[in-house]
Amino acid sequence: MRPTMKDVASAAGVALKTVSRVVNGEPGVHPGTAERVREAIERLGYSRNESARVLRRGRTSTVGLVIEDLADPFYSVLGRAVEDVTTAHGCLLLSGSSNEDPVRERELIRTFCARRVDGLIVVPAGEDHSFLRPELDAGTPAVFVDRPPGPGVDVDTVLCDNAGGARLATRHLLSHGHRRIAFLGDRPSIHTAARRLHGYRAALGRLFDERLVSMRAPVPRDVRADLDRMLALDSPPTALFTGNGRITMTALRALEGRRMALVGFDDFELADLLRPGVTVVAQDPTSMGGLAAELLFRRLSGDTGPAEHLRLPVRVIPRGSGELPP
Amino acid sequence: MRPTMKDVASAAGVALKTVSRVVNGEPGVHPGTAERVREAIERLGYSRNESARVLRRGRTSTVGLVIEDLADPFYSVLGRAVEDVTTAHGCLLLSGSSNEDPVRERELIRTFCARRVDGLIVVPAGEDHSFLRPELDAGTPAVFVDRPPGPGVDVDTVLCDNAGGARLATRHLLSHGHRRIAFLGDRPSIHTAARRLHGYRAALGRLFDERLVSMRAPVPRDVRADLDRMLALDSPPTALFTGNGRITMTALRALEGRRMALVGFDDFELADLLRPGVTVVAQDPTSMGGLAAELLFRRLSGDTGPAEHLRLPVRVIPRGSGELPP
Repeated sequence: MRPTMKDVASAAGVALKTVSRVVNGEPGVHPGTAERVREAIERLGYSRNESARVLRRGRTSTVGLVIEDLADPFYSVLGRAVEDVTTAHGCLLLSGSSNEDPVRERELIRTFCARRVDGLIVVPAGEDHSFLRPELDAGTPAVFVDRPPGPGVDVDTVLCDNAGGARLATRHLLSHGHRRIAFLGDRPSIHTAARRLHGYRAALGRLFDERLVSMRAPVPRDVRADLDRMLALDSPPTALFTGNGRITMTALRALEGRRMALVGFDDFELADLLRPGVTVVAQDPTSMGGLAAELLFRRLSGDTGPAEHLRLPVRVIPRGSGELPP
Repeated sequence: MRPTMKDVASAAGVALKTVSRVVNGEPGVHPGTAERVREAIERLGYSRNESARVLRRGRTSTVGLVIEDLADPFYSVLGRAVEDVTTAHGCLLLSGSSNEDPVRERELIRTFCARRVDGLIVVPAGEDHSFLRPELDAGTPAVFVDRPPGPGVDVDTVLCDNAGGARLATRHLLSHGHRRIAFLGDRPSIHTAARRLHGYRAALGRLFDERLVSMRAPVPRDVRADLDRMLALDSPPTALFTGNGRITMTALRALEGRRMALVGFDDFELADLLRPGVTVVAQDPTSMGGLAAELLFRRLSGDTGPAEHLRLPVRVIPRGSGELPP
């Protein structure tokens, strides 16, 4: 049913080879003839099978992106930046959400590789990426973003300064007089969560108290329960450091009505419109996604230098919640 | 460099045909032999070229998704729902952002079709989709979501009740005593914006005053200027109906400090945490994306019935801002 190059040739009254020359932009076709071929292409709606063509050339001109959740604003902004660079390089973007599940992550990466994507950009969920090695050896580059790969996989990475950001957040609260600062983080198995705990702990030094730490999945009921437990202590926290955007929102809902100092890791839309405005340590998902994609295309264009490890700075944006007194 | 089926055969000490049988799940291989083949596959990191295989079968097992902007929370949630259904059907998702540009939309759709996606899900930017007809005739189904296709293209659609939702929003403000209700909408060329204006106007009847209408791209400076102009009128608006999530946020920033009734089209994260909470007319992007994908796969499994047109209901969520008196 789909019109073929032969149909175009008959419709334009030219030889098949002439159509092929026009389609492939080769020289040697009279401008008037080329115009007639283009008209026939337009009229019949002919389109060349690019999937077959790119496969013959040994590349698919696709990039596979694995993120945690496309619906999470942090990752959708990062994904959009990857898309823009990918499109600018004439490639298409395949994407999939791992849901923080290492099994699903591996399945997605395997599916992408079986489809012979030219390269991979991965926000990893698991801690073991040895399964990637045959693909890397076969010449499929990968860039890890937001979190590093497991041991033994030496690829380009684009991370933010997680420990440094957590130190900044904690010191910010210390400088406003707080001594009892709680940390609500994500699961300790997640690289970013572990690094942020590390920075928080380092900034607190002897003030560290493990009863003020909660590391778990950002499920509202659980975060609320941990917060209630901390607030019931003899010496409860006067400030919160929340370890990512989801947890910040959960904590804000749990605090509802109660005024308490808070600094969150990750900026989010409307943080400035809440009262008080929410002070955050902001990373830049657009830069992270864009730089990861640029690194990937540098590899695709032949760069075989040692793995690059970019660590992007973060910055404190004071808006009110982090400047409340104890 | 990439290990081949032959490499697996040598490594496992079996015939090529035996490896092929194991890979394709065909019977006739002794369990012990199959196990040896699987071990060799795992050890060598062999992966079958699925892109070549699916092409030979005449399908690519990919779905192309065109949305306005992957970084916009409404579309990223919709996209995630499409992804989930696509994955459940063993297919991969190619996605691209049109940036509300009809030229870019057409380019994306053409690229997807040239790659022979099995089907398309489109949030259209343009008003002319006649260029799609050859693809539809060639058997590539398309489902339009959020907005309908241009005239003459008869495909499945999943829209929300835009006019009905705008009537609900406007009546909600009327019922709280407002008579001067402004509408801040998007460009009138956008289907959803035009339908929402229609519903707003119908609900207002003789109270309609075109000086209280602003239809333009959600650029903060412009929206703010229009709002200032309206507030300077002899009889300024006492309430706002904002036509989508972006415009609601822009208006909330522009109002900063000024208490004014407001109902927004589209729900958004943290709407409940602002003070007052933001009353919205909510549509359900997860259902929209999921249903669009289900319709597409129904077509892919052979359904050739007449085009289906789903119109999903919307609902008012009162949170405070829409219940303020004049």
